Amino acid sequence: MSAAEATNQPGQRLLVVGAGLVGTSVALAARAAGYDVTVDDRDPERVEVACSLGAGRPRAEDPGPWDLAVVAVPPAATGQVLEGLIRSGSTLTISHVSSVQLHPQRYLETSAVALNRFCGGHPVAGSERSGPGFATPELFRDRPWVLCPTDSTRPDAVEAVEALARACGARTTRMSAAAHDELFAHLSHAPQLVASALAAALLGLSRDDAQLAGTGLRDTSRLADSEPELWAEIVAANRRAVAAALRDVVAPLDDLLAALDESSQAAAAATRALVEAGGRGRRLLAGKHGKQPERWDAVDVVVPDQPGTLARLLADTADCGVNVEDIRVEHAAGQPLGVVSLMVRSAGRAALTATLRERGWATTAGPTAAG
Amino acid sequence: MSAAEATNQPGQRLLVVGAGLVGTSVALAARAAGYDVTVDDRDPERVEVACSLGAGRPRAEDPGPWDLAVVAVPPAATGQVLEGLIRSGSTLTISHVSSVQLHPQRYLETSAVALNRFCGGHPVAGSERSGPGFATPELFRDRPWVLCPTDSTRPDAVEAVEALARACGARTTRMSAAAHDELFAHLSHAPQLVASALAAALLGLSRDDAQLAGTGLRDTSRLADSEPELWAEIVAANRRAVAAALRDVVAPLDDLLAALDESSQAAAAATRALVEAGGRGRRLLAGKHGKQPERWDAVDVVVPDQPGTLARLLADTADCGVNVEDIRVEHAAGQPLGVVSLMVRSAGRAALTATLRERGWATTAGPTAAG
Repeated sequence: MSAAEATNQPGQRLLVVGAGLVGTSVALAARAAGYDVTVDDRDPERVEVACSLGAGRPRAEDPGPWDLAVVAVPPAATGQVLEGLIRSGSTLTISHVSSVQLHPQRYLETSAVALNRFCGGHPVAGSERSGPGFATPELFRDRPWVLCPTDSTRPDAVEAVEALARACGARTTRMSAAAHDELFAHLSHAPQLVASALAAALLGLSRDDAQLAGTGLRDTSRLADSEPELWAEIVAANRRAVAAALRDVVAPLDDLLAALDESSQAAAAATRALVEAGGRGRRLLAGKHGKQPERWDAVDVVVPDQPGTLARLLADTADCGVNVEDIRVEHAAGQPLGVVSLMVRSAGRAALTATLRERGWATTAGPTAAG
Repeated sequence: MSAAEATNQPGQRLLVVGAGLVGTSVALAARAAGYDVTVDDRDPERVEVACSLGAGRPRAEDPGPWDLAVVAVPPAATGQVLEGLIRSGSTLTISHVSSVQLHPQRYLETSAVALNRFCGGHPVAGSERSGPGFATPELFRDRPWVLCPTDSTRPDAVEAVEALARACGARTTRMSAAAHDELFAHLSHAPQLVASALAAALLGLSRDDAQLAGTGLRDTSRLADSEPELWAEIVAANRRAVAAALRDVVAPLDDLLAALDESSQAAAAATRALVEAGGRGRRLLAGKHGKQPERWDAVDVVVPDQPGTLARLLADTADCGVNVEDIRVEHAAGQPLGVVSLMVRSAGRAALTATLRERGWATTAGPTAAG
């Protein structure tokens, strides 16, 4: 099928530029869905790894043209790579997967290239791991993928990108690049900076003291493991929206600090108000489109830090015949394992608890917990 | 054994005042370790639930005296309940489990009661669930339990509290109440307020927009589910240390905001520096006493949202005979399940992947990931 005859059907020719975690995952997912995929990267080793994983053929073996190109390079390079592709005329439709949308779009506007076949995209998925070796075709399954058409983007170009996102298993939604960048300043960029600031504030502590942290701080600061250079590029490319979103977090903390300096009563009132507001904000994240999470009963099992213990637990759990609906693993500080919560329907709780106790596991069944 | 003959051996008589999650969990763990346990609460229904779970006998049936009393009531009431117990002379040693240490200690100093048998304690463990019904004797397993003796506390009183903490499976450490409160302002109180502020900043968003959040914000804001009243009491009781810790987080964010307003270059440089510092701070939390986390290979499996699917996966995994060292469940937004990462030693990865694929699971094995 030639570029000119492109439809939204699999069998289309896709070029992925940038063989990192996200680009290679797009290539793997698209190939699994029937796309004919070519992979490019300025680092030939990454292309080799991606292709050896089944992501497609190297660009060296395919001069084009393509129906669709997806640029998956670092944010600061995205605009330039997009411009080169548009100018080359080698692809019908052009998209990218950057967490910042307005910056590359403005780059193209300034470059005065045609935008009618360009539609930005942002799959909201990733991993603390990076590089093609960690790619998986399942990275986008049930995740959001935001499409940001420009005012000049043709409907069939948006549809071509949408079809790819859906072929990757994602749930698509459309908004303008400006709306996207404001929203993700709140949902992603400001939280990253706050998590980094929280973790940076630990630097005055000794390692022994820091090790006394509970699971709360470990969760709250997990994002602080992120790559400094990637975030420098994202924040620089979206600095006004990030500043506004960050002020929405810092302003109430400044108010709280004033109350903490005032009196215990003021401190209590300000804390109560902030934690209540946080609870309301948090509920916006919970459930799918207002759907309440399912409720199951938890059977908590202590899993000692010994090789193979978890495998034994899984075997004993499987033997019991009770459906396990969810597993949560609560890691003790610095330990590979701690308490495993097996979530089951009420009817199965007693049977699972009895089986596991009989086989020597330390278990406790708590009442119903939110799933 | 009478109170006067108290030693650090099990068989001691323990009074737990406050039958919430933590108090009931202390009672359950102590009883399992051989303590003779009595439970009290101003709410008789909580006592009934706790005792029906095996936490001990109600105080109505036991006039005392006790070798050790542990007060597990909300922070604002802790000082008063401790004072009453000390004045009653009914227990030899007295402790509590509050996340704030200096406030109750000062309350007792002001009350001019004897402090020689008093030793504060803080088990660093909890749950987003609350109430005696969610108690588990395993709550403290491998968790820190900080002991805060006063200058007048007798060594055998510290040892009695330490013995209880160890009987509950915790790792004990000692520091002054003032050092504890400063440390936990950083490790727990400031992170709670920051998580609440992050979640509160979402309140301007529509539910549909908020649902586009990735797993990062969900983790970072998890603490925002906490109880407003409990935190109002904790923060009010530790407001000066909390203010200092919170300023350590807000000050770098203020500096960053100035850089964001300045230029893209300044924004990039400030972000890079903050994310790098956050990474260093975060590494203080990782590993046990400097031990590097073990490295395993991940086999990622897509688990569709259907009852019993996870149970089938566990059964298929168990059949394979490969030791599973850890499990991580990455939940898709609003879905009960998403991708399950089974962590195994390199040697077992291929076999597990093959078995699971053979049985129809969608899997991807990535290279080695940090455990």
